[in-house]
Amino acid sequence: MRLWSNMELSVYRIFVLLYLGGVPFIEAEKLLVLPLDGSHWLSMRILVENLGQRGNQVVVLAPHSNIYIHPSENYILRTYPVPYSKQLLKEQMVKSANSVFAKRPLLEKITNMYQRITNITDILFSACQHLLYSKEIMQELRESAFDAALIDPFFPCGMIVAEYLRLPSLYLLYGLPCGIDFLATQCPSPISYVPRHFTGYSDLMSFPQRLKNALVWSVDSLICNFLYSPYARLASEFLHKEITILQLYSQTSIWLMRTDFVFDYPRPLMPNMVLVGGINCIGRKHLSQEFEKLVNSSGEHGFVVFSLGSMVSEIPINKATDIAEALKSIPQQVLWRYTGKTPPNLGENTHLVKWLPQNDLLAHPKARAFITHAGSHGIYEGICNAVPMVMLPLFGDQMDNAKRIESRGAGLTLNVLHMTSEDLSNAVKAVINNPVYKENIQRLSSLHLDRPVHPLDLAVHWVEFVMRHKGAPHLRPAAHDLNWFQYYSLDVIGFLMFFLLTTLFISLKCCTFVFRRCCKRSSKQKPKSKSQ
Amino acid sequence: MRLWSNMELSVYRIFVLLYLGGVPFIEAEKLLVLPLDGSHWLSMRILVENLGQRGNQVVVLAPHSNIYIHPSENYILRTYPVPYSKQLLKEQMVKSANSVFAKRPLLEKITNMYQRITNITDILFSACQHLLYSKEIMQELRESAFDAALIDPFFPCGMIVAEYLRLPSLYLLYGLPCGIDFLATQCPSPISYVPRHFTGYSDLMSFPQRLKNALVWSVDSLICNFLYSPYARLASEFLHKEITILQLYSQTSIWLMRTDFVFDYPRPLMPNMVLVGGINCIGRKHLSQEFEKLVNSSGEHGFVVFSLGSMVSEIPINKATDIAEALKSIPQQVLWRYTGKTPPNLGENTHLVKWLPQNDLLAHPKARAFITHAGSHGIYEGICNAVPMVMLPLFGDQMDNAKRIESRGAGLTLNVLHMTSEDLSNAVKAVINNPVYKENIQRLSSLHLDRPVHPLDLAVHWVEFVMRHKGAPHLRPAAHDLNWFQYYSLDVIGFLMFFLLTTLFISLKCCTFVFRRCCKRSSKQKPKSKSQ
Repeated sequence: MRLWSNMELSVYRIFVLLYLGGVPFIEAEKLLVLPLDGSHWLSMRILVENLGQRGNQVVVLAPHSNIYIHPSENYILRTYPVPYSKQLLKEQMVKSANSVFAKRPLLEKITNMYQRITNITDILFSACQHLLYSKEIMQELRESAFDAALIDPFFPCGMIVAEYLRLPSLYLLYGLPCGIDFLATQCPSPISYVPRHFTGYSDLMSFPQRLKNALVWSVDSLICNFLYSPYARLASEFLHKEITILQLYSQTSIWLMRTDFVFDYPRPLMPNMVLVGGINCIGRKHLSQEFEKLVNSSGEHGFVVFSLGSMVSEIPINKATDIAEALKSIPQQVLWRYTGKTPPNLGENTHLVKWLPQNDLLAHPKARAFITHAGSHGIYEGICNAVPMVMLPLFGDQMDNAKRIESRGAGLTLNVLHMTSEDLSNAVKAVINNPVYKENIQRLSSLHLDRPVHPLDLAVHWVEFVMRHKGAPHLRPAAHDLNWFQYYSLDVIGFLMFFLLTTLFISLKCCTFVFRRCCKRSSKQKPKSKSQ
Repeated sequence: MRLWSNMELSVYRIFVLLYLGGVPFIEAEKLLVLPLDGSHWLSMRILVENLGQRGNQVVVLAPHSNIYIHPSENYILRTYPVPYSKQLLKEQMVKSANSVFAKRPLLEKITNMYQRITNITDILFSACQHLLYSKEIMQELRESAFDAALIDPFFPCGMIVAEYLRLPSLYLLYGLPCGIDFLATQCPSPISYVPRHFTGYSDLMSFPQRLKNALVWSVDSLICNFLYSPYARLASEFLHKEITILQLYSQTSIWLMRTDFVFDYPRPLMPNMVLVGGINCIGRKHLSQEFEKLVNSSGEHGFVVFSLGSMVSEIPINKATDIAEALKSIPQQVLWRYTGKTPPNLGENTHLVKWLPQNDLLAHPKARAFITHAGSHGIYEGICNAVPMVMLPLFGDQMDNAKRIESRGAGLTLNVLHMTSEDLSNAVKAVINNPVYKENIQRLSSLHLDRPVHPLDLAVHWVEFVMRHKGAPHLRPAAHDLNWFQYYSLDVIGFLMFFLLTTLFISLKCCTFVFRRCCKRSSKQKPKSKSQ
């Protein structure tokens, strides 16, 4: 399989334009998209589809075995062979979900987590190797003469491709492990009020919390090393030049960050960071007949939306039974995305569905609460639609997300492993019946929605900007041209200290010298006077 | 005179809406504007007029004696009496301009500059005192129940009023003396690549430049103290509470900064900084008959726009004669804003005008070059309209502005005091005839104009946002709640050092103890063996 030729792409462009009808003609640019499979693709897909609809020529490059990245009329999907099957990916997903719910001793838990992360990173790394060393694909990419690359930077494979093709690029991200995003952008992150990932702290930290935050910061570089060092070796080998991971990450023109300070804690930013938090909240679409019926039957009590995210659709039966027990006790109807074995005690008010239109349901005026794993997409949909949340974080950044919403008084967090039916039932009742939660989420929502440009339009603008201007070098700080010694002005401080100490030393020596001369003279004079 | 009552304001609002016709109805909010007279008012006026046109109730509070702040149908101008006349202000302006052109020894120059600054600050300080201690005005302001205050923060009088009225506020600014804007926003400004005001450095500094930058940074606090300490005392006295200048400045919700990284050097920002550089570049209006005629007569060579800004319309005759000599030598027509005595050698191609529509002239396709004092407004108009510049910076930030444009290859800088006729003539010819200057300014212009929202709309959005939501506390970083010791994590570092040293000390002591015991034992054993 090969990429489309220029003529074929022109035909495709005309087709897209004809298909779209009303979309104004914009000079088409060629965009290469390097996504990551899984939930990351959800918001990138929205952006990519929109760019395609606007008449850009978009090519999405993805592994042949993937779960979520499907063909679309708005982009060309180019897949490359990888040495694993879709089945293996699905098994890894189920294993990951199950391991969250397994009660194990701490040491075993850590070993298990390490094993899981290693498995996933190994799979992705092998995919990257296969992509880079596929001569046919690289040749096609070179010939395609793209204008820019849109990359999911969670793993640094896309940037190796962009560097190889010398393409200006943009990243779309929510956050990166070990804070490498803020290192690579040269963005100051004072540890005194910027909580590190996985600490679960807010921006107001006590002394012990700030101490732990500093310690987490200091071990972050180890995590970075563990995760990324294979890519550094791969990049250096493939590009035939020594290149570090930080150098690779810092090449990009624009960082499209799915952040908004309604949700996140205010912190310094750099000029090439564009905040597009809430990019996935796009206007409410009509519900299908099935859901419309369910929703309308909910009466005055309304309904609750329950989903543990795209990656976790089934959970162990004993946990599902506990949850069913809790949901049975509330007067609302519950729409629960769940594909596992039906719990025997499922209440009449609880409807299991294999998939649900989450944003459209949350946008319904009868939506009363949202039980969520606190993934970034769900959280922003909860904020957009002003629905208070009960959060059951499972892994990754979800604990931090839950903490943020809880610290804003817009939801409650439960430990999914240790919670009882009663805990869940009480939490759902609280966020529905205590008006404080609704008021707080409404306040956040009104702040979040009050913006001059929708985050999706903003992201589209910047992708097209980078394509039009072949990058955005005017937003790149000169900090990238300094080494750490210069950046922290240690040479200047050293020089000033040296100058100060030397001046002090010379002054002291002069004083001592003058003092001695005076003493000598007076001691010489004294005997004289005596002799007189 | 008193502020309008609510009923009168409603009538005013209806009048405005009727007058504007097509403007959609937006729930009117009440905005208090506290401007600064002079060139600062130019961009603030554009924003204020726009806010008024959108149906907001806008009251501009200005000293009775002022030069540029005139009544408008889009806002209510409320003046307060001050102990100086408009004549005095004008005299100060002329004195300031003349002193720039006077050749003096360095010491005398510094004394003269100090005297000028003291005169201006004294005038403004007395105006502030008169405003704050006018019981009638303060009473009216209290009763007017404003939603927010829009302030020019160059001197901290407006924020004392906002603090007294407990109003959320926004600042519109280009930059503040001694970098107090970045101190008050808690925005990191690494001295290794962020040049300080008045250094004229770019973001790429050599070691001696970084050293000087550090020294300027260290004396900035003295300048801050000199400029602002009287206001700190005034604020504490008036508000009946101890308040520092930094606390006063940091109260605001949004900093509307007239910055764009096409022109300025990329540096860290804070979430409540909104970049509105180029806010003054609004669409080209038709030229009046007088200018249209002048412009059309310029032929293939086009014309040059020459203005030293709103504050300097006349200069000493000998300098004017030198300039006239230079302008005579170029084939372009020259439109020179100049109100002084006509130079005897004025060329036929040079047209003296008392005022000129600068942006509209620069937007004309026949505009070939812009001779400017490098004030921020002019610079942005030059960028918007892609006209290469010859810059004759006079005072304040103008040297820095000129350096920025020059470092981008979009203009040339001359020392207005030491330049000869030939220097000026050569510089104008160079920027017109060497295509590099035009190409560079066109590149800057295309980057600057390619944005998702016009800076004016962005500023309007944020002013209305602050009025709607009574501030923007979600953008205020927690850094404001830390003292400097905590901010820099010095307590955490101290604790870790103490812990490390104590552990080291105890380990050392243990080792010594064990070693001694071992030695003792072996030395006891030795004699034994001897005795054996």
